[in-house]
Formats: sequence, C-alpha cells, structure tokens
Amino acid sequence: MRPSRRAPDELRAVSLERGVVKYAEGSCMVKFGDTHVLVTATLEERLPPWLKGQGRGWVTAEYGMLPRATLERTRREASAGKQNGRTVEIQRLIGRSLRATVDLEALGERQITVDCDVIQADGGTRTASITGAWVALADCIGWMKARNMIKGNVLRDNVAAISCGIYGGTPVLDLDYAEDSEAETDANFVMTGDGRIIEVQGTAEKTPFSQDEFLALMALARKGVARLVDLQKMAVA
Amino acid sequence: MRPSRRAPDELRAVSLERGVVKYAEGSCMVKFGDTHVLVTATLEERLPPWLKGQGRGWVTAEYGMLPRATLERTRREASAGKQNGRTVEIQRLIGRSLRATVDLEALGERQITVDCDVIQADGGTRTASITGAWVALADCIGWMKARNMIKGNVLRDNVAAISCGIYGGTPVLDLDYAEDSEAETDANFVMTGDGRIIEVQGTAEKTPFSQDEFLALMALARKGVARLVDLQKMAVA
Amino acid sequence: MRPSRRAPDELRAVSLERGVVKYAEGSCMVKFGDTHVLVTATLEERLPPWLKGQGRGWVTAEYGMLPRATLERTRREASAGKQNGRTVEIQRLIGRSLRATVDLEALGERQITVDCDVIQADGGTRTASITGAWVALADCIGWMKARNMIKGNVLRDNVAAISCGIYGGTPVLDLDYAEDSEAETDANFVMTGDGRIIEVQGTAEKTPFSQDEFLALMALARKGVARLVDLQKMAVA
Amino acid sequence: MRPSRRAPDELRAVSLERGVVKYAEGSCMVKFGDTHVLVTATLEERLPPWLKGQGRGWVTAEYGMLPRATLERTRREASAGKQNGRTVEIQRLIGRSLRATVDLEALGERQITVDCDVIQADGGTRTASITGAWVALADCIGWMKARNMIKGNVLRDNVAAISCGIYGGTPVLDLDYAEDSEAETDANFVMTGDGRIIEVQGTAEKTPFSQDEFLALMALARKGVARLVDLQKMAVA
Amino acid sequence: MRPSRRAPDELRAVSLERGVVKYAEGSCMVKFGDTHVLVTATLEERLPPWLKGQGRGWVTAEYGMLPRATLERTRREASAGKQNGRTVEIQRLIGRSLRATVDLEALGERQITVDCDVIQADGGTRTASITGAWVALADCIGWMKARNMIKGNVLRDNVAAISCGIYGGTPVLDLDYAEDSEAETDANFVMTGDGRIIEVQGTAEKTPFSQDEFLALMALARKGVARLVDLQKMAVA
Amino acid sequence: MRPSRRAPDELRAVSLERGVVKYAEGSCMVKFGDTHVLVTATLEERLPPWLKGQGRGWVTAEYGMLPRATLERTRREASAGKQNGRTVEIQRLIGRSLRATVDLEALGERQITVDCDVIQADGGTRTASITGAWVALADCIGWMKARNMIKGNVLRDNVAAISCGIYGGTPVLDLDYAEDSEAETDANFVMTGDGRIIEVQGTAEKTPFSQDEFLALMALARKGVARLVDLQKMAVA
Repeated sequence: MRPSRRAPDELRAVSLERGVVKYAEGSCMVKFGDTHVLVTATLEERLPPWLKGQGRGWVTAEYGMLPRATLERTRREASAGKQNGRTVEIQRLIGRSLRATVDLEALGERQITVDCDVIQADGGTRTASITGAWVALADCIGWMKARNMIKGNVLRDNVAAISCGIYGGTPVLDLDYAEDSEAETDANFVMTGDGRIIEVQGTAEKTPFSQDEFLALMALARKGVARLVDLQKMAVA
Repeated sequence: MRPSRRAPDELRAVSLERGVVKYAEGSCMVKFGDTHVLVTATLEERLPPWLKGQGRGWVTAEYGMLPRATLERTRREASAGKQNGRTVEIQRLIGRSLRATVDLEALGERQITVDCDVIQADGGTRTASITGAWVALADCIGWMKARNMIKGNVLRDNVAAISCGIYGGTPVLDLDYAEDSEAETDANFVMTGDGRIIEVQGTAEKTPFSQDEFLALMALARKGVARLVDLQKMAVA
Repeated sequence: MRPSRRAPDELRAVSLERGVVKYAEGSCMVKFGDTHVLVTATLEERLPPWLKGQGRGWVTAEYGMLPRATLERTRREASAGKQNGRTVEIQRLIGRSLRATVDLEALGERQITVDCDVIQADGGTRTASITGAWVALADCIGWMKARNMIKGNVLRDNVAAISCGIYGGTPVLDLDYAEDSEAETDANFVMTGDGRIIEVQGTAEKTPFSQDEFLALMALARKGVARLVDLQKMAVA
Repeated sequence: MRPSRRAPDELRAVSLERGVVKYAEGSCMVKFGDTHVLVTATLEERLPPWLKGQGRGWVTAEYGMLPRATLERTRREASAGKQNGRTVEIQRLIGRSLRATVDLEALGERQITVDCDVIQADGGTRTASITGAWVALADCIGWMKARNMIKGNVLRDNVAAISCGIYGGTPVLDLDYAEDSEAETDANFVMTGDGRIIEVQGTAEKTPFSQDEFLALMALARKGVARLVDLQKMAVA
Repeated sequence: MRPSRRAPDELRAVSLERGVVKYAEGSCMVKFGDTHVLVTATLEERLPPWLKGQGRGWVTAEYGMLPRATLERTRREASAGKQNGRTVEIQRLIGRSLRATVDLEALGERQITVDCDVIQADGGTRTASITGAWVALADCIGWMKARNMIKGNVLRDNVAAISCGIYGGTPVLDLDYAEDSEAETDANFVMTGDGRIIEVQGTAEKTPFSQDEFLALMALARKGVARLVDLQKMAVA
Repeated sequence: MRPSRRAPDELRAVSLERGVVKYAEGSCMVKFGDTHVLVTATLEERLPPWLKGQGRGWVTAEYGMLPRATLERTRREASAGKQNGRTVEIQRLIGRSLRATVDLEALGERQITVDCDVIQADGGTRTASITGAWVALADCIGWMKARNMIKGNVLRDNVAAISCGIYGGTPVLDLDYAEDSEAETDANFVMTGDGRIIEVQGTAEKTPFSQDEFLALMALARKGVARLVDLQKMAVA
C-alpha cells in the first residue's frame, strides 16, 4: 500500500494553471499533488555568444527552490554564492528536454528562458517542472505567433515527464517525497506526445535493478506521460 | 491624477493570505495590488555563532525576486553567484524592522528566518515584504506558543511599512511601479502599531526635498500604516 | 553628558585636507574627530554599459575600511572574496548622495568614481565620507574645467551629511563610536547647501521613536550640515 | 560504417593499468582508445559532517579535465573559479555508481575519494572514469585489507560503464568523439558484474527514440559491460 | 642619469612614522619618496587551525592597494571578488620575510597580522612595505613586553628590503616607477640587520642578466639595506 | 649524506618525453625523479584584451596539481573555487621565465598557453615545469614553422630551471621532497642556455643565508641548468 493510498499506476492530482505572472510571455503554475512549481517563459532578442549568426534560436532553463519549499529550510543559493550540483543537473535536464521538440531554426535568432521555481516540494519537482515548462513554452510561442514573429510549427510535439520507482517491491508511478525517500530505485522519464523517449534517468543507489524491473517502470511511465499530455492539451486548448 | 486613478492617500488593494506553504511555521502571501510576495517564517534551534550563549534569540530575513517577477527578466542571483546591492539592502531592512518589536530574550536561544520572495513586482516590494513578514512571524510565534515553547509576549507590537513619494508635485501614498519610476522623491516608512517610527528612508535622487514635503510624506505614511495594521489584525484574528 | 563632553549640538573637530594623493583628479582626507577617511575622485572616459550613448555621465562611489581601522581587526574584504552588506549599503548611499547635485548631462559621457577608504573609524564613517567626497568631486570637476572639458555648472550645490541620535534620552549631533553603540536610535541626514534633504535614514532597532523625536534630530542635522557646508566652502575656496 | 571501422558491438582497445601514482592507496590509468583517464583512490579517516557517528563510511568522486585534454583548449576550472555543470553532473554520477556496490557499514567510518582526471578526451570520459574508478577503489580496499583495517566483503560486485548510441541509423557500442558529436541519441549505462542496472542515462536532444531503439542500446551495453568486467577481473587478479 | 637625478646608490627620501593608527598594537606610515604605505600590526589570541597546540605563534601579512594609489585607477579587489596574483605574491613575501627573524616559540600561541596598504604607489611598494612592517611589528612586540606577555627576545634582528635594477646599463638602487617600468632587469633583496639574505627575487623579463650584474645589484642592496636598518633603529629608539 | 644518496651536485634522473597528448601543438611529460609533470602548449589566435593591436604575441602559463599528486590528498582547486597563493606564484613564474627568451614580435598576434599539471610531486615541481615547458613551447613553435606561420627565430635560447638548497650544512642540487622539507634555505634558479639568469628566488625562512652560501648555490645551479639544457637539446633534436 502506498502512503498516499494511490493505486500503483495512479498520478497525484495534477493541475496546470496558465497566465499566473502578468509580465511573462508564458507562465504556468503546475501542481503534482503537494509539489507546486511556478514556471515562466521569457522571450529575449539575444542569444548566447556561441550561437550568434547561425540562424537558430535557443531554449534554456533555470531551476530554483524557495528556501522553505522543503520540510527543513534549505540555504538560499543566491546567498551561498552558487547553485548546487542537484540544481545544475535539473536545469540542464529541463533545457535539453524542451529543446528536443522545438524547431530552433523556426524559432529564429531568439532565446526563450524557462524559469522553474519550486514553491513547495513533495517529490517529483523535476518532472512537474518539465511538464509545466512545456505549457509556459507553448504559451510563449503562441504569444509570438499572435505577433507574427514566427511562422510554421516551432513546437513539434508535447513534452511531459514523470517519475517511477520500486516501492515496497512494487513498481509505482509518480513518487511523492514519502515514497521517494524509501524507494529502492527510481527513474525519471521524459517523453513526447507520440510516446517516444527524450530522456531516461534511472538510479539505483541502494539496489541495482534488473532489466525486467526497468521495463516495468518504463511501461508505467508511458501511461503516466500519456495522461499528462492529455492534461497539457486541455490546458492550452 | 495618478496612473492608477487612486486618491493621493489611497492604498492599493491589500491582501494578506496566511498558511500558503505547508511546511513553514508561518507563511503569508501578501499582495499590494500587482505586487505579490510570498513570505515564510522558519524556526530553527540554532543561532549565528556570535550570539550563542547569551540567552537571546535572533530574527533575520532574506529577500529575493523570481527572475520574471519584473517587466524584463532579471538575472537569477544564484546563477550570478551573488546577491546584488539592492537585495542586500532590502533584506537587512526587513530584518531590522522585525527585530524592533520582538523581545529577543523571550524568544529564547532560537532563530527565526523570514524569507520574502517576490513573485510579481509592481513597486513597493520591500514595504509589502515587511507588512507580510510580520504576519508570517506572528504565525510562527503562535505555532511556538501552541507548543508551549515560549511564554509571555514575544511580539510587542505590529510592524508595517509603506512608501510615499512626490508624484507630479503631489504627495501620494503607496507608489506603484509607474509612479515610482517617475516620482521626484520617495520615502519608505516602517512603523509600529502605536504609530512610532522604526525606519525612515527618504531618497531624492532627482530633486532634493524640503522639510515640509518630507513631513507631508510622513503624515501620509502614518495613515497608510494604520490601515495596514488594521488589516494585519484582521488577518491574524 | 556626552562621553566626549561635547554639547548636544556640537560637531567633532572637522578637517578637510585637499590634494592628498598625487595621481587623483581630486582627493580629500576628511576627519570628523578620530574618524579619518581618505577620498579620491577618478575621472574616466568610459561609462557603465547601460548608460552608453545617452549623452549623460555618471558618478559612482566605492567604500572600504582598512582592516585595522577598527578596534578589533576586521577581515579584509578582498581576502574574504566579497563586500559585506554594510559596505554595499554605504557605497550606494554615497553614490546617490553625490548624484543628487551633479548635472549628469553637463558632465558629458564620462564617469567619476569616488573611493572612500576609512583609515580610522570612530563612528560616522559614512557621513564623513559623503562630506569629504563632495570636496574631492568638486576638485575633480575643477580639474576638468581647467582643461576646458566641461562648460557651465556641473555641480549644482554642496552636499554634506551628519548623523544624529538619541543618547541618554537627549538628541545629540555627530555620534562617535562610544555614543553610537549606546544610542537608542540614530539617523543619518544628507542635505544640500540650501538646506534641502537628499537622504534620510533613521533606524530604531532598540526603541522606535516618535515623530517629535525625529523632528528634533532633523533640526540638529540642519545645523550640523550648515556648518559642514561652510567648512567645505572654505576648503575649496 | 563507423569512422573507426569498428563493428557495431565492438569496444575500443581498453587498458587498465594499476599503481600509476605512488602515493595513492589505489590508482588506475584507464584507456578506452584515445580517451585516457588517470584515477586515484584516497583513503581518509574523516567523514562529511552529515555522516558522522552513524557507523558508516562514504565513497565520493571528483572529476576534472586537463585544459588540453580536448581538441580546443578548455578553460581551467580552478582559474574560472567554479566547476561547470557538466563536471558536477559527471562526478555525482561516478560517486553514485561506486556507492551502489560498496557496503558502507563494512567500510567503517572512513571516506574514500576517487579522483578522475582526464588526460586526453576522445568521447566516453565518464564511462571510462567509472570503469577505471572501480579498479582504483578495489586496490584501495585491498590496501586496507592488507592492513587489517576491514573485514568481510566491502565491495559486493564489479561496476563498469559504457555508452551506446544510434549512429547513422545503427545502434553502436562505445562511441568515440567523432561518433558522439554526430549521434542522433546516446545513452550511458552503468551496470554491475551480474548484469543489473545501476544507472541509465539516455538523452535524445536531436531525435527522440523509440522503446525498441532503447532496448537495442541496452542489449549492446550489457555485452560491453560484461567484457569490461572481464578486463577488470584480469587487471586486479 | 636617473630621472630623479639621484646617484646610482642613492635611496629616495625615507621616513618611518610610528603610531599612526590609534587602535593598532603597532603601526607605521612608511614613505620611500612618493611611495606611501600604511602598515598596522594586530595581535590576536588565535592561530590558524593547522598551528594550534604546537606551542608556537605565527606572523602573517596582507597587502592591498587603494584603488587610486596608482596613475590609473585599479579595480578594487574587494569588488572584483578576489585578490590578484601580484597581491598574493607580495603578501606571502612580506609574511615570510618577517617570520625569518621572529622567534615563534617565544611569541607564544598568538598571531600577529601585519596589514600593508598602499596609499600612493611610485615603485617599490613591496620593499617599503617590508621595511615599514618591521617597525610596526617591533612596536607590537614592545606593546606585548610592556604588558609582560612575552619574555626574552622575540625579534632576533632587523629586516629591511630594497629593490635594485639595471637602468640605462647602470646598476641603480631603489627604483621608482619611472625607472622600474624602463629597467632591463630588477631584483628585490630582503636582508637582516647583520647583512644576511632572507629573500632574493631577481627577474629579467626583458634581458637575462649575467652573474656579475647580479652581484653588482646585490652589493648595492647591502648598502641600501644597511641604511634602512639605521633608519629603523632611529625610528624605534 | 643525502637521503637519495646522490652526490651534492647530482641531478635526479631526468626525462623529457615529447608528443604525449595528441591534440596539443606541443607537449612534454617531464620527470625529475619521482616528480612528474605533464606540460602542453596551446596555440590560439587570440590575445588578452590589453595586448590587442600592438603587433606582439603573448606566452602565458597555468599550473595545477592533481589532488593525489601529493602524499596527502590536496583539495581540488576547481572545487575550492580558487587557485591558492602558491599556484598563482608558480604559474606567474613559469610565464615570465618563458617570455624571457621568446621574441614576442616574431610570434605575431597570437597567444601560446602552457599548462603544467603535476601528476606526481616529489619536490621541484616548478623547476621541472619550466624545464619541460620549454620543450613543449619549442614543439609548438616548430608546429607553427612547419605551417609557415612564423619566420625567423621566435625562440632565442633555451630556458631551464633547478632548485638548490643547503641541506645538513652542505649546498646540494635539485632537492627532492625529503630534502626540501628539511633544508635550511633553498633557491630556485631559472637560466638561459648561455648561462645568464632569468629568475632567482632565494628564500630563507629558517636561517638567513650569507652571500657566500648564496654564491655556492648559484654555482651548483649553473652546472645543473647546463645539464638540463643538454637534455633539452637532445630531446628536441
């Protein structure tokens, strides 16, 4: 039995609320249960130096947690003077995930920066971030289309992400913090709307897992992502 | 005429919503119009090294802005590797303001850290932060009382803050961004529930102001703070 | 009775010695009693990036303390790897104060950097810095005039600053360290030669002060600044 | 045809040379073709603060590249003042991978730090690092056993890692730089001697991959890791 | 002919003024012509961690330049966030030079920190710093003796330093900036009162020098240091 | 008797192996006994900003130690976030030493960066670095000549370096770690192929040395450098 009494293949309550910050070209408050992430997408007419003059744009991401998003207060990274390794890892993952379905040529020589700030953390902040980031990104691209800044299909497909893990011997979907801290292994899957894989990250610090276990997690993830993509489509409709 | 069509002595719509983050001992989402700040108060059984063993506690504050709280995206301080001068100034102000009405001996050898994170900025983020911080702090102290951790009156009075400025030649209360960027001079007042002054910061980068102008601003501020203190009392009742 | 036996409205011995560093376009060793600050003004034909091409110049300030300017040695900020919050606050204040009376258009596309380095600290380092900085700035502008680099009146008025506080229940002028560390409240006033206010910073960490107390401090400050402005005029005559 | 003319399931020439640095408790120069990594394992009788007094030890890793390990010189991280995101990601991966087969209780309250420094980089530096790190770690543990510092089986199994990717439409094993920069997708697999999975990281920045493609990569990886584990066993025999 | 019209073996006017900062246990304003360095010596009852409990004390030094000590303004190191290589080199040299004649056992478990801050720089700031630092150090040790904190001879000998160089083909003593920037080679000598060598640093970036040239510089240096030691003895008498 | 049983004027076994890193324009693994340093020379068509447009090139150096090059593991500088004072001192010395025999005009507007990374440290890492760096630099310049990028004689002479010290009362050549940590005084000499001096750094933290002792060290150094220059000539022949 999961601590939250969910079925093994049951997501937490998911909500995707758009337009939550008035200045941003796109924004989304994404909630996976008690995990709440505020995502904004910012369009800028500038590029990283190494990308200038190549006729392509760029999508990048930054990730942060408010100090008291967590059970115990976490030190503010701005005050510590640097982003820790986990933060760096997550924001690189978010950026790669989004770029996988963006047509950077069609975007033109511009940069979209997606900021994911965790307001409350109860496990799965990176998967919630990616799922909400796609919504903010879609709104940002919609904003550009409304101003005739781009033509054609910049966003080729949906992108959503979910975690799975083996908890008490059973493969389960969408781990919350109580499960995540007890799970033998867990994996994060980033997938497209048509079911292909963008990123897989499986980690088994306690007990290495077998190929069959891994396939069971992947099957759960496909189901979860399909549901998240449906919710994204409803949100941006 | 003010851009917002408010009367010279009229505050923006103010709201103080408590209990917005489930882990924090106290929290408050404070809104002064389109300025939204999420405040949390964290209790920790530890002290800065220089305060140990003196039988007193400490209250400190940290301040941050989400990158897209502003019209243009601001660089994330965690990524820049340091807090800028404005951030440092504001968080020191918030800390001093709160400590002025806390009985640090009665608090005991503990630290309360108040985090003020600006979700959306439309002028007056520091005054909104202080006003909301008092509510989060009061809830944190209530949380301690409910657990018999403290006796007596840790919080001696309310603390609230408001900005005033001379806009188009007229003294006005609670400047929003449109006014703030045009004002000849502006001042921030932090005051107690009984009308005394904790902090005054008046700045006249464009045109120095006369003593009479300054007194007019102070009179407006007293009115504004009295109203904010009423709203705080209703919020925590 | 003040520890220094001064009358409540009595400044410490003030001296403003010009031309103390041979390379600088303007320089001043300012002493308020045992508080000694070396100020230099540097003219550079460059601007911060955000100001380029606007036909205006800039005046900025940096502040530092030699490690043993204080009773106990303070850690060298260059070795600590960053400027602390107090330093940042003070140097921003000095810069704003000077800019309030400089005609930045008349200055042209150039930057003047004022460096205030505290050689010995006995309270009031920020007010001494501002008062001496005006002298160094005036000399730097004189240096430019002598070379026909500018026309007209770049410096519209004098700027000087003084602290006041309530010590032993009495409002007193120009606090030294012994008073400052005991004062219930204190405030710093930056004013122009014609008696208008540029900056007011009043802080009451121990006991909030009433409006009447604040007005008494302001009256003392007007007197003190008027005397400092006289001394500045004599110094640059 | 692969640029190196290797068969799709063919590793580069692998060598694992032990005892290459005289001071270290364990060391290994690992070569996967032209990718050369110098690994040392250091035993220290100290622990990270958060682990003290729990009766367990710790294994951690650091990763670096010599500036001219690469085609173009890379800026030295010590001079840049921080480790970049890629470095942080890799060293966290190496540490997690090694810990998955170490019995931290049996290790006792000690820390082993594994340093992986890339002398020459031709793709696959992280998989070579992990594979060589296991050898250095095994030697370090052997060093402890020879001194009766530990009993029983600290190292439960081998750990090795390999990359796979889809190059020119074909799944291939052990990508070199020429392949890696052209591959549609690639994945790194960290596995145990008995064929279970410790870490999977699949990334498809260009073209998302299907589940079948992913399974093909995993099959190649199992073969490659089995071969690497054989080589490790020969090396430490 | 030297730009300053000095004879080849002629020092600039040297002055050593003691007691220039009221808080420090020892202080000295040292002037070698237009090079002015303010030196303080601070006694602290603490030690660097690696030296604790060994029955010995420590002497260390820090060096800095005020931003406008130089012809062009130099960026403030506290603001740049780090000390540059030249600063680090010089402060290490000063510390080593002083320690060479201090009996660290006789000093006891205490640290003396010598701060050398350049007010005005016209060449030879490191040699002036060392020469003045010895005076401040001697005063600090005198301060301790007057309080019966130490017995016996903590300071075994004088230490002074001077630069020499080959300018226009002629070996000359005590280079000023005009000479230093034109000299083919230069060397700094740190010597004791009895004529022995503590440090020699000879650098020939433009033209390597012969052994005879080096010996000519050393002979000049012995003469110069002997004169500086006489001045130190007069200063502390 | 020296711990290594070498004669007082005997170098350790020296080897200079070229071409050890495939990407670099020049490279050398230099060994002085158990001190091993990997040196690479990188040619780049760019210059430091302050040197642009002057028709001259630049040679600079960076130095690092792998964490376990030493008996005890040293903290990785990239992870500590800065290069320590010793590192900065050494890399500046290497750069100055090389520039002394390079004709920067003949090099043209390009930069050569020499990276010296210590694989194993047993004393004399800076002298080994300089000696090996000259070989890598010579190969880099050869690489340019082979491509007709330069004409004439960019490298005017050889540069090599050696340490000497007084150990057990006797002047000895090429100190290893066992001697270095016990020596009363030591000095590093950087000299040209024709026997002239580029840098001398003599340090006597324990016991100041006499002029005669210094001359004895210098005589040893001349002998040692002459031998190293012979080895360099054989290596690049």
